[in-house]
Amino acid sequence: MIFVDIATIIGIILGLVMMVFGVISNGSSITEYLHVPSAIITFGGAFASTLTSHTLQEFVTGIKSFALALKVPVLNTTQMITSIIELSNVARKEGLLSLEEAATELDEPFLKKGILLVVDGTDPELVRGILETELVSIEERHKKIIGFWDTVAAMGPAWGMIGTLLGLVSMLNNMSDPNSIGPNMAVALITTLYGSMLANWIATPIANKLRVNNAAEMQQKEVMIEGLLSIQAGENPRVIEEKLKSFLAPKDRENPQDEADFGGEE
Amino acid sequence: MIFVDIATIIGIILGLVMMVFGVISNGSSITEYLHVPSAIITFGGAFASTLTSHTLQEFVTGIKSFALALKVPVLNTTQMITSIIELSNVARKEGLLSLEEAATELDEPFLKKGILLVVDGTDPELVRGILETELVSIEERHKKIIGFWDTVAAMGPAWGMIGTLLGLVSMLNNMSDPNSIGPNMAVALITTLYGSMLANWIATPIANKLRVNNAAEMQQKEVMIEGLLSIQAGENPRVIEEKLKSFLAPKDRENPQDEADFGGEE
Amino acid sequence: MIFVDIATIIGIILGLVMMVFGVISNGSSITEYLHVPSAIITFGGAFASTLTSHTLQEFVTGIKSFALALKVPVLNTTQMITSIIELSNVARKEGLLSLEEAATELDEPFLKKGILLVVDGTDPELVRGILETELVSIEERHKKIIGFWDTVAAMGPAWGMIGTLLGLVSMLNNMSDPNSIGPNMAVALITTLYGSMLANWIATPIANKLRVNNAAEMQQKEVMIEGLLSIQAGENPRVIEEKLKSFLAPKDRENPQDEADFGGEE
Amino acid sequence: MIFVDIATIIGIILGLVMMVFGVISNGSSITEYLHVPSAIITFGGAFASTLTSHTLQEFVTGIKSFALALKVPVLNTTQMITSIIELSNVARKEGLLSLEEAATELDEPFLKKGILLVVDGTDPELVRGILETELVSIEERHKKIIGFWDTVAAMGPAWGMIGTLLGLVSMLNNMSDPNSIGPNMAVALITTLYGSMLANWIATPIANKLRVNNAAEMQQKEVMIEGLLSIQAGENPRVIEEKLKSFLAPKDRENPQDEADFGGEE
Amino acid sequence: MIFVDIATIIGIILGLVMMVFGVISNGSSITEYLHVPSAIITFGGAFASTLTSHTLQEFVTGIKSFALALKVPVLNTTQMITSIIELSNVARKEGLLSLEEAATELDEPFLKKGILLVVDGTDPELVRGILETELVSIEERHKKIIGFWDTVAAMGPAWGMIGTLLGLVSMLNNMSDPNSIGPNMAVALITTLYGSMLANWIATPIANKLRVNNAAEMQQKEVMIEGLLSIQAGENPRVIEEKLKSFLAPKDRENPQDEADFGGEE
Repeated sequence: MIFVDIATIIGIILGLVMMVFGVISNGSSITEYLHVPSAIITFGGAFASTLTSHTLQEFVTGIKSFALALKVPVLNTTQMITSIIELSNVARKEGLLSLEEAATELDEPFLKKGILLVVDGTDPELVRGILETELVSIEERHKKIIGFWDTVAAMGPAWGMIGTLLGLVSMLNNMSDPNSIGPNMAVALITTLYGSMLANWIATPIANKLRVNNAAEMQQKEVMIEGLLSIQAGENPRVIEEKLKSFLAPKDRENPQDEADFGGEE
Repeated sequence: MIFVDIATIIGIILGLVMMVFGVISNGSSITEYLHVPSAIITFGGAFASTLTSHTLQEFVTGIKSFALALKVPVLNTTQMITSIIELSNVARKEGLLSLEEAATELDEPFLKKGILLVVDGTDPELVRGILETELVSIEERHKKIIGFWDTVAAMGPAWGMIGTLLGLVSMLNNMSDPNSIGPNMAVALITTLYGSMLANWIATPIANKLRVNNAAEMQQKEVMIEGLLSIQAGENPRVIEEKLKSFLAPKDRENPQDEADFGGEE
Repeated sequence: MIFVDIATIIGIILGLVMMVFGVISNGSSITEYLHVPSAIITFGGAFASTLTSHTLQEFVTGIKSFALALKVPVLNTTQMITSIIELSNVARKEGLLSLEEAATELDEPFLKKGILLVVDGTDPELVRGILETELVSIEERHKKIIGFWDTVAAMGPAWGMIGTLLGLVSMLNNMSDPNSIGPNMAVALITTLYGSMLANWIATPIANKLRVNNAAEMQQKEVMIEGLLSIQAGENPRVIEEKLKSFLAPKDRENPQDEADFGGEE
Repeated sequence: MIFVDIATIIGIILGLVMMVFGVISNGSSITEYLHVPSAIITFGGAFASTLTSHTLQEFVTGIKSFALALKVPVLNTTQMITSIIELSNVARKEGLLSLEEAATELDEPFLKKGILLVVDGTDPELVRGILETELVSIEERHKKIIGFWDTVAAMGPAWGMIGTLLGLVSMLNNMSDPNSIGPNMAVALITTLYGSMLANWIATPIANKLRVNNAAEMQQKEVMIEGLLSIQAGENPRVIEEKLKSFLAPKDRENPQDEADFGGEE
Repeated sequence: MIFVDIATIIGIILGLVMMVFGVISNGSSITEYLHVPSAIITFGGAFASTLTSHTLQEFVTGIKSFALALKVPVLNTTQMITSIIELSNVARKEGLLSLEEAATELDEPFLKKGILLVVDGTDPELVRGILETELVSIEERHKKIIGFWDTVAAMGPAWGMIGTLLGLVSMLNNMSDPNSIGPNMAVALITTLYGSMLANWIATPIANKLRVNNAAEMQQKEVMIEGLLSIQAGENPRVIEEKLKSFLAPKDRENPQDEADFGGEE
């Protein structure tokens, strides 16, 4: 199960509300700011340069990842630690092989894979090696997606400026009618506005959010690796708990039903 | 006990005084600079994009952390070293187990946790591992909070510019009355002013201050880890003192009642 | 065989289409934006400073590398892993020496070189040392080429601004005819437009694309080194498969005929 | 003994001369550029935000460090190496204990501390540990001071812009008298000028200079650590000389009375 | 022997040609752009702040290093590898001591020093330690010089802006004669033009070029260290060749008389 991330959705809607409010309270109308050719040159140009920067499949994955930023990962680190401690108790009582059955009930594929490696009797160094390679590879795939939005965030204002320069050159060459100078310059500035909106309303926050999600996932996977290797080494469940809780903020240690893995300590 | 950090509070008040002074000495009135729609678009937009960038709980923690920047950590590193040397003397005279009682009197949870691990006879490598995991996790939580203010500092000017562009487009489309051009442009510039104030008067200094506080806390915790492991290894209190004082500036070494852990050496 | 990379080519063409569309929908003509002296000062100046920044041969290699960004590497990591597992099966059944024959059929020179080192009975540490030196040296050569395009991307807008300043100074010294001010300023702005185009339409996306290609090649070569050393160590082909598949996204693990090595996981 | 650093003092004076010359050769008078309210808002605001960013003591240390940038460290690395080689000869001839007397004559507290540790028979690993902790702590204190000037350099232009925006809004609201527009805008720009001067004439060069001085001191202390550990290990003075001279530029190796530790090699 | 680096010289001349061409094709005359007070404030101010940032000797070394950027290092890595392999053959046939004679014929002081250390029977770890310390020290001296040009590149536009602000304030205070506004503003902009030229025509490309030269020299010295230690370890010349050729691009491996050490691989 994946839940919707209310912060990101509210943030994007609120950003739009702020802009609409700014326009209306200014006594202007929204239609003054809607200009299809400006939209095409700014958004089209920015996405064209982003396409040039990546392969076709990375581009498609990047676009799709917009949906990822709106989702909250279900399992939190506190719950994860509880599960690992349960597994360590099972392993201690019934042997490592008994984990195979426990693994079938797990949703988390990374933890499952690790348990199966342990059950197979794989060498601990090799278990760590395989799981860390996977961790690094996941992070590199995440970084590609974050890089996609960083490119969009850089290209939005850049193409906004190209659009404005195109408009200014045209305006400056046609100044015979003084009454047209203002509106022509207004149109020229709309691409800069669009580029700034693309970067600061959408692309940069999405890249930031994916970065935050990646950091949480990486920390969770590090907890899994530490826990799995401790289980394999037959360590005491109480020591494993002490070890894994070091990853948590103090306030999350006592309430395993608590939802967050960030800090409120002073 | 937590004391108020006078530097940060004075700095923020002084910044406001400078701006008010600048306005008044200019012969203008403060009311010229108060414009509610501009405030809503700049501050609202900046915080909306910051909300998009984080989870709801991180956002709330970030807002609350403003108060953290106004506080001074009570215990300084010089005092901390004195405490650790006292503990090492206790351990040497009465054995490691006697530290359990001493630990109950300590305010500092990190040091307390470390002592309890040592008293439990935990393996030194594991003590270091657990404490360093905790240190890294605390730093990551701090970096999230610092990242919150860095995002605000970036989004303030960005939304200030969006507001100014919205205002300029509207102004350029309505230039029939030459007398309104000046005031309309003044209004358009107010969002840029607000964005710049949000970034440079509040958000960047708060982020910087939290960074400074984090560095001091991390150094203090490193001192604790080094000290604890030396106590566990049964090292000579005089050697421990020599080791831990290497973390201090020369002038703080002789006066344990001195308040600071930064340098005045040449 | 090398295939054309459709994303990069479409991206560049699309960028041009967007600009032409912007000009035409604006009611301007393309000829307004064509100004040979502006092109010479911007492109000429940018490439002159790029030439100053490098040696002649690096400059030539940099220019030629434009073609590299338009190509897709043929072999993908999934296929590479399949080949290495086949080689490990051959080595296990017929001995390491039998790899010499298998190597002659390989297209990939890096893998071929590694196999010949293994067949020669080179010490594993030395095999890793030689292959990693080669990996690092390839990456440094790639970084030089990427640095070439980064320099072009920085110098384009810089020389665009020099051109605009040259034009503005001239315009400001000749304001006797008010009708010439607009067109003169339009001409002055064209160099800024050209510099922005050079950076954001061409140079930055090409540098980004070469960075993406380099990362993919480095990952593939790391897979080869890991695989070769596992073959040399006589590891079980099933373990080697497990190890190497950790480099892949989950969806690429089951379909070796699939084309990509990036992630679509949630 | 500490000497005045002539480069930094001449540089600051020369910068002022350049600006005064620019004003006078322009036919303007210095008084046009002196505007007390602009100075208060720019310098006051920049230092207020810097105060917010630090603790009170760090702020005071930062201000005082201005004097540090004007001083040249007396002892150079070439002389330091000569002293260490002399010490190694003493140690070799008369034993490590004889260094105690030699240490009393040394001015350099870091070297002195190291020698006393060696004379005390401290374990070499512990000597290295204590001295490297001290080295890292000194560098962190230096970095705080450098960070102070970097903050000033960032806040100067930021508050200059705030001042200019305050002035522009006021000017745009009061355009009834066309003759006042120019002078009002001139006043508005003065804060930007002051901010730019604070950053580029003073704060950035001071930060750079402190960075240069820190690098020289760190290299010198690394030479001391290497030398001390070699003396403790009883290495041949000729080998120690060879080792330590590797830190120097070739031209400084033959002339120990030469004053510099930077390179003129090709 | 040191050859002139044609790329850098042509690049600088071409940059000047582009600017002169831009001016002339614009119908302006060069004299419009020559303004001694503007030159003094921009170049004088930029070099004054650079002087403040460094010691006097570093400043002089930095200025002199301009000449370094115009030179090509004579020996290339391919030739270096050939020499090292010859030395390894000599050492294998006639013993390590026979290298002493071979060393006298070498031009390269770094290689010569290494050989003398080997001939003296220095411990391999110490040989590596001494040579790597020297390598790091050379790189730090190079980075100081590169830092000099980076400072000039940052200070040029900064002082250009200070000059322009000085000019604008003066112009805005003297707007009584409308005909003088244009030329006064033209003069104000010339400092920005000069600052941009100093940064983008000279300082940044020189810094880039010195960075490229440093990277090539560091790679060559790493080849020497690897080769020397292999010779000392008595490794097979064929293995040494394999090892060292990993540093080269494939196309440079077969033609030792080829001149370059950068890549043309796909």
